[in-house]
Amino acid sequence: MKKEIGRFERMYPNPAVLVSCSDGIRDNIITIAWAGTVCSNPPMISVSIRPSRYSHELIIASKEFVINIPESKLIAACEHCGTISGRECDKFKENKLSRQTGSFLKTPMIKECPISIECSVKKIINLGSHDMFIGEVLAVHADESIIYSDGDIDYEKIDMLSHLMGYYFKNKIIK
Amino acid sequence: MKKEIGRFERMYPNPAVLVSCSDGIRDNIITIAWAGTVCSNPPMISVSIRPSRYSHELIIASKEFVINIPESKLIAACEHCGTISGRECDKFKENKLSRQTGSFLKTPMIKECPISIECSVKKIINLGSHDMFIGEVLAVHADESIIYSDGDIDYEKIDMLSHLMGYYFKNKIIK
Repeated sequence: MKKEIGRFERMYPNPAVLVSCSDGIRDNIITIAWAGTVCSNPPMISVSIRPSRYSHELIIASKEFVINIPESKLIAACEHCGTISGRECDKFKENKLSRQTGSFLKTPMIKECPISIECSVKKIINLGSHDMFIGEVLAVHADESIIYSDGDIDYEKIDMLSHLMGYYFKNKIIK
Repeated sequence: MKKEIGRFERMYPNPAVLVSCSDGIRDNIITIAWAGTVCSNPPMISVSIRPSRYSHELIIASKEFVINIPESKLIAACEHCGTISGRECDKFKENKLSRQTGSFLKTPMIKECPISIECSVKKIINLGSHDMFIGEVLAVHADESIIYSDGDIDYEKIDMLSHLMGYYFKNKIIK
């Protein structure tokens, strides 16, 4: 039997991605769960961010962001980058993360994440508490250690995360 | 060292949800990976669907859909509902799934999924290969067997799935 429960966001899974951003001078990292693929051609990813957030200000200025996909060893960084404001600290330094230059954007990628996706903002849609930034994928970067010779990713080699209502989940291929 | 690879949708995790839809006369189920939470207040979920799909036609007509979250035992139904067109068959019948009436919509929920989320379409955005339907959550229904007395969900009790590039993943709480 089903029962009606609280009218919250109960979608599952949500990602837990580290989004890096920059206005060309300052940069920041924000942990995002409200994100997902929204189109295949062109490939597009959306991230939703509250207007009060420092990262919102940086992305509005530059119209770009990088999705960095963390492994489970970066959970502490995910928690830190999701709770502390980048107005008050350098999140790369505080979390011992390294900046890495991508192919197209001024925004740095995070070296410690096995996959980084450079995105250029095409639309910004105000939905209420959050603005949704729709970014077109310009380039995907993956660690050489996790890719096959044809350039495809070996997902058995990544210890990926998902997130829901404060919980982190490990993910294992079953089929 | 990172290497630039194919410019595909490499966001992870993607959900694998069974979206039910109806125009008031006919109904259908489509498996969707391009979906995610996009706003907290009001709670909103997006699903992206190719205009050629039967479900696209039904959702355009009714402006409503239901997100049904499957457990891993429904992988065969996820594969069937993601590859066969509902123009040719009754996917409820073919996958031995049962219709269940929700609180607000004409669209049936899927009884065999532990969580069903009724959504009313607020925006439709053409992005290229896919149209994004942004739905406001009207009600969340969960099996009594997976909820605590306060109505919150016990995620340890659900054998949830995620999806990427043709692979299905099991999810286990780690923190």
